[in-house]
Parts: sequence; C-alpha cells; structure tokens
Amino acid sequence: MSSNNDKHLTTEHIHLMETRYRAKLINSLSGFKSANLIATKNTQGHTNLAVVSSVIHLGSDPALIGYITRPTSVQRDTLSNITTTKEYTINQISSNFWQAAHQTSARYSENESEFELVGLTEQYIKHFSAPFVKESRLKYALILTDIIPIHANNTKLIIGKVTDIICDKTALKSDGYIDIECLNTTCISSLDSYHTTIRLSRLSYAKPGKKLKRLSVNGEIID
Amino acid sequence: MSSNNDKHLTTEHIHLMETRYRAKLINSLSGFKSANLIATKNTQGHTNLAVVSSVIHLGSDPALIGYITRPTSVQRDTLSNITTTKEYTINQISSNFWQAAHQTSARYSENESEFELVGLTEQYIKHFSAPFVKESRLKYALILTDIIPIHANNTKLIIGKVTDIICDKTALKSDGYIDIECLNTTCISSLDSYHTTIRLSRLSYAKPGKKLKRLSVNGEIID
Repeated sequence: MSSNNDKHLTTEHIHLMETRYRAKLINSLSGFKSANLIATKNTQGHTNLAVVSSVIHLGSDPALIGYITRPTSVQRDTLSNITTTKEYTINQISSNFWQAAHQTSARYSENESEFELVGLTEQYIKHFSAPFVKESRLKYALILTDIIPIHANNTKLIIGKVTDIICDKTALKSDGYIDIECLNTTCISSLDSYHTTIRLSRLSYAKPGKKLKRLSVNGEIID
Repeated sequence: MSSNNDKHLTTEHIHLMETRYRAKLINSLSGFKSANLIATKNTQGHTNLAVVSSVIHLGSDPALIGYITRPTSVQRDTLSNITTTKEYTINQISSNFWQAAHQTSARYSENESEFELVGLTEQYIKHFSAPFVKESRLKYALILTDIIPIHANNTKLIIGKVTDIICDKTALKSDGYIDIECLNTTCISSLDSYHTTIRLSRLSYAKPGKKLKRLSVNGEIID
C-alpha cells in the first residue's frame, strides 16, 4: 500500500482534471525528456525550426531515430516539410541557447523562419537541403523512412535514418560514447522546465551474480 | 559548413563502425533519455522488473505512455507478461536506487524475480496485479491498449493507458507540474550513463513577439 507521503490519483481523478493541469501532470510521468530542435526547409526555400521533447532512439543498425507529432500542433509545418522533402535535421539543445529554442514553440506563420525570429543560425552541409542549427554541438541529418499512425490519439511516429552526424570532437570518446553532458545538452521535464545534468557515473554491463562497476566518462573502471 | 572543432561522420562511417561502438554512439544522439523500471507479474505469480530508457509521453487525454521494445531482448519476459495480463507499472528511477535499477538489465532466467535479486521491494494497490517499486517516488499503473510493430527494425511501440498514479505529495505543484528533480529522478545518456539534474528554470508559454518569462518550480514569474 502507499505510504503517508504518497498521493494516489485514480482514473476518475485524471478524468476530472482541468485540461492544462492534466497536461502538465501527465507530461511529468515519463521522466526527463530529450530536448531537441528539428529543422526543415520547404520547397520554396523557407526554413522552419521546432522544439521537440519526444525524440527517441529506435535502433543503431540501421541508425533510426523517431519522434512523436500531433498533426494539428505548431509542428505542422515541420511535418509538412519532412513529408515533402524527406529531409530534416535534429539538433540537441544546449544551455547556451535553451530560451531561444523554447521560443520556437510560438505559433509563427508558415513563411516566417524561426531561425531568424529567435536568433539562431542556419548551417548547411553539401548534398542536404535541410539546415542544421549552428549553435548546437551535436546534430544529425535524417532521411524520412516511415510515418506510423498512432490511432489511439491521432498522433504519428516519424522515423528517420541518420545519414550525417556533426559532433564536437571533444565529446566523442574512444568507445563511441558521446559525452552530451559536457556539451551542456539540456533535458526537459513536463512541458516547460529545462535542466542540465550531473553525471552519477557510467556503469558496467550488468551480468547475473556479478557486482556492477562504476565507469568513468571514458569507460574506464573507477571502483 | 562545419567548424574545426566538429567531427563529421557520414553514412559510410556509421556503416563501418564496430557494432558496440556504433550502439554507444547512436544511442547518444537522441539526447537524455528517461530512466524507468517496468514491473510485471506473470500468471504463475512470478514478478519481473526491467530497466527501460525509451519511455515516452504520447498524450494527456487520454493519458497514454509508450515505450519501445525489441522482442528478442532481455525485456522479453516483460513483454510476454504485458501481452498476457495487460497490466504493468512504470516506476521512475531515482538516484537512491539507480545501480539496483541498472542491475535488472542482467539476463536472469524467467522464474527469477529481479525485485529480490537486485534488492528492490514490491508494492501493490487493490484491483491491480502488477507490482510497483516501493522505492520509486513517482510511479503509475497502465493497461495495455496497443502494440504497434515498427517494421524498419523489428521493434514494437507498446502503448498503455495510465489508470493510477502514486506520487510523493511534496513534488506535485498547484498547476499540475510534478517536480521530478526534487524526487531525484535520474536520466540516462547513451547505454550506461546515469545523471541527476539541475533546473535552469521553467519558462512561460511562448508567443510570437513576446519575451519569454522565467518561472519558478511553482509556476510563478521570476523575471
């Protein structure tokens, strides 16, 4: 049973909550969320930038990354550009530009570029039309591979294959681990709270009956 | 173009990486991941506990939470129990038991309970068969609503509807925001690094042409 410090909310409580109260509460449940900007360009050359907290790892081989979108949201331009051009970039949000990143969630019109409006800089690589965010220190280009409808609430899982990764050299460790903490990558809780992190440690691969070892950021055994 | 500090990895580089190197690198791209334990019980009464870093918010009304699973992984018992019983719980991992949580990823046999093996405690509510993790200060019960196959890499998106939430009272703010940082909720980077957080601040709802305001944890304007 619950302890005295615990609040127990039931289906009935959740159902009766005021809409925005419920949105903040339910958005707190999944834990810390990744903080990313998705950048696209439409066929007329207009760029678009959207803060997204639902980017998720799907697999390493092939390298697939997904995110969840609600077709009617302010991200509709992003989805429309991805569907048309098949190209987009995902850019980790660092504490150096977290407020500019959040500002991209304002409901700007289709022909306004969030880059210019919030003060972030477009960056390009050869043979890829979508812009990167220059200020981001870990970012990657994706080609759309699949859009999976989630009928339960009319959202979609957008899946892309990673083609190009641009990463600050200092963060890439010899075993493939990228120290996103040293890049000041932020995370999000609920709808509007941004956080930086403090590493507890890396941990060794868990095996039955074997004590875990703490690992340094470089993957070396600490104790 | 990239700056001199940047490493640019192409599709060819990614393709040629050693498997574990690529897994650590690609798992770093999505940003910080949520850290949760999924708890289930099979029809014989054996409990199961699995650390999962792919739990994701899908929607607030109805309250839907998803996670990604690879059917052949160590999480196969979890998936099998969810499919059979339709009931499971998700429990945020705090810095008070992060190492025990990571240890649940060891390949234990089907009839061994990770609860006992890693030293965590089962907790139950009425009318729900799956256990909660007593040590977790924010946790919720879910009823399976959908399993969506992701054909691109043979993974699945498991979707559940939240029925009961158990949360430390002190963390629940008057506007619905839950201060998961004060609960010492951790997040994960790549495959094996655990982190606690430091709040930058909450931010006001973004509107075009309007300066963002920083908000306290209680949602009050700071500046």
